[in-house]
Amino acid sequence: MSGTAQIGVTGLAVMGRNLARNFARNGFTVALHNRTSARTRELVEAFGDEGSFVPAESAEEFVAALERPRRLVIMVKAGDPTDAVIEEFAPLLEPGDVIIDGGNAHFADTRRREHDLRERGIHFVGVGISGGEEGALHGPSIMPGGSEESYASLGPLLEKIAAKAPDGTPCTTHIGPDGAGHFVKMVHNGIEYADMQLIAEAYHLLRSVAGYSPEKIAETFRGWNTGRLDSYLIEITAEVLAHKDAATGKPFIDIVADRAEQKGTGRWTVQIALDLGVPVSGIAEAVFARSLSGHADLREASHALPGPVPQPLGEKDAAHFADQVEQALYASKIVSYTQGFHHIQAGSDAYDWSIDLGAVASIWRAGCIIRAAFLDRIRAAYDAQPNLPSLLSDKQFAEEIGSAQDDWRGVVAAAARQGVPTPGFSAALAYYDALRARRLPAALTQGQRDFFGAHTYRRTDRDGSFHTLWGGDRSEVRTD
Amino acid sequence: MSGTAQIGVTGLAVMGRNLARNFARNGFTVALHNRTSARTRELVEAFGDEGSFVPAESAEEFVAALERPRRLVIMVKAGDPTDAVIEEFAPLLEPGDVIIDGGNAHFADTRRREHDLRERGIHFVGVGISGGEEGALHGPSIMPGGSEESYASLGPLLEKIAAKAPDGTPCTTHIGPDGAGHFVKMVHNGIEYADMQLIAEAYHLLRSVAGYSPEKIAETFRGWNTGRLDSYLIEITAEVLAHKDAATGKPFIDIVADRAEQKGTGRWTVQIALDLGVPVSGIAEAVFARSLSGHADLREASHALPGPVPQPLGEKDAAHFADQVEQALYASKIVSYTQGFHHIQAGSDAYDWSIDLGAVASIWRAGCIIRAAFLDRIRAAYDAQPNLPSLLSDKQFAEEIGSAQDDWRGVVAAAARQGVPTPGFSAALAYYDALRARRLPAALTQGQRDFFGAHTYRRTDRDGSFHTLWGGDRSEVRTD
Repeated sequence: MSGTAQIGVTGLAVMGRNLARNFARNGFTVALHNRTSARTRELVEAFGDEGSFVPAESAEEFVAALERPRRLVIMVKAGDPTDAVIEEFAPLLEPGDVIIDGGNAHFADTRRREHDLRERGIHFVGVGISGGEEGALHGPSIMPGGSEESYASLGPLLEKIAAKAPDGTPCTTHIGPDGAGHFVKMVHNGIEYADMQLIAEAYHLLRSVAGYSPEKIAETFRGWNTGRLDSYLIEITAEVLAHKDAATGKPFIDIVADRAEQKGTGRWTVQIALDLGVPVSGIAEAVFARSLSGHADLREASHALPGPVPQPLGEKDAAHFADQVEQALYASKIVSYTQGFHHIQAGSDAYDWSIDLGAVASIWRAGCIIRAAFLDRIRAAYDAQPNLPSLLSDKQFAEEIGSAQDDWRGVVAAAARQGVPTPGFSAALAYYDALRARRLPAALTQGQRDFFGAHTYRRTDRDGSFHTLWGGDRSEVRTD
Repeated sequence: MSGTAQIGVTGLAVMGRNLARNFARNGFTVALHNRTSARTRELVEAFGDEGSFVPAESAEEFVAALERPRRLVIMVKAGDPTDAVIEEFAPLLEPGDVIIDGGNAHFADTRRREHDLRERGIHFVGVGISGGEEGALHGPSIMPGGSEESYASLGPLLEKIAAKAPDGTPCTTHIGPDGAGHFVKMVHNGIEYADMQLIAEAYHLLRSVAGYSPEKIAETFRGWNTGRLDSYLIEITAEVLAHKDAATGKPFIDIVADRAEQKGTGRWTVQIALDLGVPVSGIAEAVFARSLSGHADLREASHALPGPVPQPLGEKDAAHFADQVEQALYASKIVSYTQGFHHIQAGSDAYDWSIDLGAVASIWRAGCIIRAAFLDRIRAAYDAQPNLPSLLSDKQFAEEIGSAQDDWRGVVAAAARQGVPTPGFSAALAYYDALRARRLPAALTQGQRDFFGAHTYRRTDRDGSFHTLWGGDRSEVRTD
């Protein structure tokens, strides 16, 4: 027997509830299920008039409410709870049915689950969903992995509930097989970490070096938000900085404890990039900056360490400096995205996913935290040249970063001299200069490795692998 | 029946062979075993006169040759081969016997193996051995984990074959239970990566900004090696830079391909630090610098990116700049070790290892790749204050970095302006400035997180967890 619901959602905490409402508001009949059914009833009571819901008390009832092939979205905590729910439902399903995991799973878990369920004839689709609670309700950016076949069944529904880019394109696409969706979501979050860190550094420089008040900085960010930096994160930065704490009358930013927390996807991004051999220094510095901020004991013990105290600039110099910071922020942002897209390309190569990088940029244009005008430019770069070796190889980005670099260098130099930490700006600049260098001192590193560990080296002038007899007469031997 | 050999070595590739010879040269009777016994016979033929060897053809013969409790060193490739050898020998052993893994195992594997073998009454000791082939033969730095009891049996032998610090102390100590030895060896290698990267940056600056020839730089490093930077790596850097390529007559450094390889322990160090929430930006940048150097396609596509071309300095300015680079290198090195020792402390806390950080510094003073006069200073810092929150809290290091910081800032600023990548110097300076900052822009990051994800924040002026209703009237609610 087959039910009438086109989609089911199990796990009705805030993300699951909002996603279910989003489906219903878009005209789909939605089966609902939750471990404790009080939550199911609450949803129907509060939002039942938004669309067509079929509440189910039991797993069997839930599955029976779905039309075939069944589409069943799991919205529970990543990790063991996800496995538990899969094991609860899989035995009730039939070949061709689709289980969708909308949690923040590690892509390696998604690969494992997809593989296991495929052997049982069930499609498993790991879906990255970005946009938080509001996005889930009003239109998130959706990154589904899984088989082509599952996307044929699921895609039309996702396209309906996804955010729409300014040109009307739905912010979802079939990213690629098995764990590709969760992988891309992970890198999205890594880029988000880097974006936030760069913004934090820009704020810190405007505050300490330019001597701007939070309000003045909010105004500066509002100005930037009308230009090439136009983005959700810049927009909310201005909101946060302009906000006054009601209890004290002070700027909100000054009463918030300076300890940034994290939930793990930034860390994963760096760990996987290390496995894939992709330098993602900007994301790494962002993750480290958050963990450093939380080491209260270390920080406490270090406050007395000597360093310069920035002298606020005069009004005109400050305005000029702020413009330079905008250039540095933009250039560093190009580098972050260059590293992030390199990471996705490397993942796609390693797991044979054939990810379309332009399409990824396209579906990040709305709904997600890093949504920005900038992403349209990245999409255009990959559309024009799908095999772009790196974003920095795009003519327009190269030109922009080229014209920003002088100010960028000035800002990094000023930060170093004035004692303001800019790990993100500095790492981005070092990456840029390392990539363009014709010779890197990696030659010395490899020479040292040959000296102490006989690790061999290659030569610039002929093929082969060589070792110098450092402990002997220092002649060179061929080792391949 | 019990044999006469105090120690056995199975796996007689170069590291195993040299370790076996080291034991024999120090008066121990050494049982030998290898999967293919030709290698065992070769060892005895070539080096039989160095001491007392008992070659064994089979696993049974090998085990029978050992006195009880048996001490059996496995020197095979890390990973599955290690598990295979353990499974081959464990059934032949008796409670109280000790299996020693001298390979470069991941400490998590060592923890697993120790746990499994403990249940079978067998001690498993993961031992980090640093110093390469030469060290294995003449005296390495040895980092054993495992039980106290196993160290009572094994320690005296290790102390005999280990390198001796200038004051005569053997470079080995019981690091701590289960995987502590391999963990510390991993961080040792991470620090080695950072040291090598910092040296590479110093070289690059002297070459590009000071305009020095490789020979002149070799001379500069030789000079540094007589001061506080006195270390094996600085010594061999001078050797590598002074070396001429016989085939072309050019400096060796100019014919080596600028592509640095890696074997994985640096990567592990960063991945585990991310799990433990320890900022190890210097090590991360070193790992990224190596992987970046290997991306020939990306680099090729980026050579045309615009940037300044350094103008070599005049002789006097160059000499002054070289002195500043020494300061920057030394300060950055202090930061690398600060991060590395923080990492060890965090591992020790997480796994309840009670590692003595001063003892770790002590056993790195000779035998290993990062051996340096500097380590005696670190030992002294921890001896004086075992609960030092960080190396930067040590009075003398704080003073030294304080007096170096002006030049350090100058070098980082010059590198940024002149387009020479110094990711390691820059990351170290940013870490220093972040640690000493009284307020970090992490407050903004946390404010943004509260805005888009309701992740809450803490306040500077009272306890509790708070959320601002950003989408509503922007009042503050308490969430705990």
